[in-house]
Amino acid sequence: MIKADTLIIGGGPAGILAGLANKKLSPKSKILLVKNEKGIIIRCSEPYAIAGKVRLSQIVHPDEKMLQKNGISFLVDEITGFVNFPQKRIATTKKGKKIEFKNLVLATGAKPFIPPILGIENAKNVFTLRDAGDVKKISKAAKKARKVVIIGGGAIGIEVASLLREKGKSVAILEVASQLMPGAYDIGLANKVKEILEKKGIKVKLGIQVKEIKKKMVVTSRGNIGFDLVICSCGVRANVELAQKLDCRLGKFGILVNQFCQTSQKGIWAIGDCAQAKSFITKKPIPSQLATTAVLMGKIAGMNIAGKKEKLEGVLNPAVSCFFDYAVGRVGLTEKEAKNEKISVKVASAQSTNQYPSQMSAKPLEIKLVFNQKNSRLIGAQVFGGKKDVGMRINLLSLAISQRLTAEKLSKLNYCAHPEETPLPFAEPMIMAAEQVVDVLRHREV
Amino acid sequence: MIKADTLIIGGGPAGILAGLANKKLSPKSKILLVKNEKGIIIRCSEPYAIAGKVRLSQIVHPDEKMLQKNGISFLVDEITGFVNFPQKRIATTKKGKKIEFKNLVLATGAKPFIPPILGIENAKNVFTLRDAGDVKKISKAAKKARKVVIIGGGAIGIEVASLLREKGKSVAILEVASQLMPGAYDIGLANKVKEILEKKGIKVKLGIQVKEIKKKMVVTSRGNIGFDLVICSCGVRANVELAQKLDCRLGKFGILVNQFCQTSQKGIWAIGDCAQAKSFITKKPIPSQLATTAVLMGKIAGMNIAGKKEKLEGVLNPAVSCFFDYAVGRVGLTEKEAKNEKISVKVASAQSTNQYPSQMSAKPLEIKLVFNQKNSRLIGAQVFGGKKDVGMRINLLSLAISQRLTAEKLSKLNYCAHPEETPLPFAEPMIMAAEQVVDVLRHREV
Repeated sequence: MIKADTLIIGGGPAGILAGLANKKLSPKSKILLVKNEKGIIIRCSEPYAIAGKVRLSQIVHPDEKMLQKNGISFLVDEITGFVNFPQKRIATTKKGKKIEFKNLVLATGAKPFIPPILGIENAKNVFTLRDAGDVKKISKAAKKARKVVIIGGGAIGIEVASLLREKGKSVAILEVASQLMPGAYDIGLANKVKEILEKKGIKVKLGIQVKEIKKKMVVTSRGNIGFDLVICSCGVRANVELAQKLDCRLGKFGILVNQFCQTSQKGIWAIGDCAQAKSFITKKPIPSQLATTAVLMGKIAGMNIAGKKEKLEGVLNPAVSCFFDYAVGRVGLTEKEAKNEKISVKVASAQSTNQYPSQMSAKPLEIKLVFNQKNSRLIGAQVFGGKKDVGMRINLLSLAISQRLTAEKLSKLNYCAHPEETPLPFAEPMIMAAEQVVDVLRHREV
Repeated sequence: MIKADTLIIGGGPAGILAGLANKKLSPKSKILLVKNEKGIIIRCSEPYAIAGKVRLSQIVHPDEKMLQKNGISFLVDEITGFVNFPQKRIATTKKGKKIEFKNLVLATGAKPFIPPILGIENAKNVFTLRDAGDVKKISKAAKKARKVVIIGGGAIGIEVASLLREKGKSVAILEVASQLMPGAYDIGLANKVKEILEKKGIKVKLGIQVKEIKKKMVVTSRGNIGFDLVICSCGVRANVELAQKLDCRLGKFGILVNQFCQTSQKGIWAIGDCAQAKSFITKKPIPSQLATTAVLMGKIAGMNIAGKKEKLEGVLNPAVSCFFDYAVGRVGLTEKEAKNEKISVKVASAQSTNQYPSQMSAKPLEIKLVFNQKNSRLIGAQVFGGKKDVGMRINLLSLAISQRLTAEKLSKLNYCAHPEETPLPFAEPMIMAAEQVVDVLRHREV
């Protein structure tokens, strides 16, 4: 029998950060992390590995450095169940080990959602993308493939599509919704992305249903499309099987947790992709299977196990995606989401350049801000620009939302300007959009 | 006699924005802006024009588009004085015009400070950099020059030095203080900049006094340095002559103004480089001759003239400078400044990479945060990284300071991560530095 103060199931960012945060506050605590695979893969880099831009070995970090060196023991094994829970607190593993624990952290992650498509399970050269094994298989198939079909026009689908298009492949994206990245972006920005993808030669088919996958042929509601490689990128679903064995209550998007990342069972936490997040704004459950959410939840759980009552007030799902030379980002509510929530909004958009327009490399930069009409607070933002123009603006706007900043306050941000780093001093689109809402300045041409 | 509701003296960003903000709220108001030169020059682009990276015509915007098109009349002329002020409110111009005004906005800018160096006034090929004429003269001289000496190791000096070094010139920077960019950065980051400049072949001489400029020779406290071109870049001093004629009270760094940008004289505002700014943190006067401060002050004054009681709570001097492939930025108080103000500080530094380390183009990124020990609030930040890594982080940290964010709150920022845009999800140095202060997580190796 192995004994642990805290057993962490899962070695993704949530599990690791829970261990680190807990160890820091409780240096004497015995922490055991059980993970299915050797090595820590950086999932957001997987598209780059598939396209051969980075080697798989570069995006898999050794467990020892992150875990053992920081005082966290780990086992590469799989938790299969529990012995006589809740009378006892003992987990069993595939390799036949038994682990007695006081605290349990479920960081079991998520698995790709496979839509109900005839023949998808057994089709050759049809893959989902999640772990290192998937990367290997897809990379190998991609090398030989000429025709690539991506099922799902979400962030990952778009990134994989653009990276493989850059390698000269013929690429089609099939999205069942009427816009790319539905749920994350409003249609205006989504269509802008679509235009660029199409200009670069990617076929983007919206409102299309995939009915069947045959040998080398995808059968859709609008005809057949030949393929050498299909990547099915339709989002993920929380892994809740172990939570179910523990009778933890579930929500729509994963294991139900409170602000402390505690499940309905005493002494059991759930964090990362397997746990259900809550919107910072609406306080309702939302899917939030992002590495940065996992990191936040991991820290919260780790600190709480150590007795520090840290709270997660909710998430804003700040995210950025890159395709070709462009990037898009989003945070908070879209205009559509806000309307669905019956929030009256004021929306403002502003266009500018990412550098002073006199710089040779200046590119367009566009921002849409969503404000709550009632109190003028920022509740959502979408940004389109070049690489490096988007992520940090999203982070700034995320901070603004979390601080409940009004348009007026945002319009008075004390920012900096530089020819190579920012728009002109009076042309930062975040500020211009905020000003539109406070109705202070007339539209200025630059 | 010309009549104006509001007379604005000066056509830089402060004056323009004052006009725009006022016009927006008082569309019927008659606004006249008097400016010395035709065209609106973007000063921060001047180093790029000198180095031939942009044409002068690209960085001079036409007055008509910014002013006339937005309902603001302008004259290219010079205000020389006032008739019988304060009994009358009439300004006289060099070209013999008289302008009667109700409200007056002083946006008279600043002029380069010329240190008391023997022979500097009449030396050939010795210039200061401010207006379009200076750019023309320096550009012309730079084309033929082989040896360039920059007097002053501030932000502009460093930018001009690196841009001319990239053109293959032999460049020396002479700085009287014991570090580069004194007053803006702590010595640690300043020395990092120095190292890079030296590695690129620029001679950086600190703690050196320039005593005399002779023909083709700079005489210093540590010997003589030959030159073909000297650029004297020792900061600027507020233009306060007209304010003095109006008996406006002056401060150490410019015309004294309150939170509404009003001078001590009723109905007279002062904004931009000529006005004295106040630190958001210490509430004491500080120099803040930045375009973005001018923009902020301009808006405040324009709104106040229209009757809207907008306040400027103080400035944080967010700024970013680029040199070679690098950028540095700062906002709020340096550690040294805080100590001079008798504020007990907690300081934290963190190093990371600007992209996921697996990306080929990943570069180091380093952040230093200064917190008030008493309440754990962020009061200052310095960032070193590649171009595009710094400016928006400075803006985010500026927002954080203005929101009086504590280290704890900053450590829980809901940020995004992406291989091409940001550090790894758990390696954002802003967060890592904040965590050090809240003492939550142990130092993690990535």
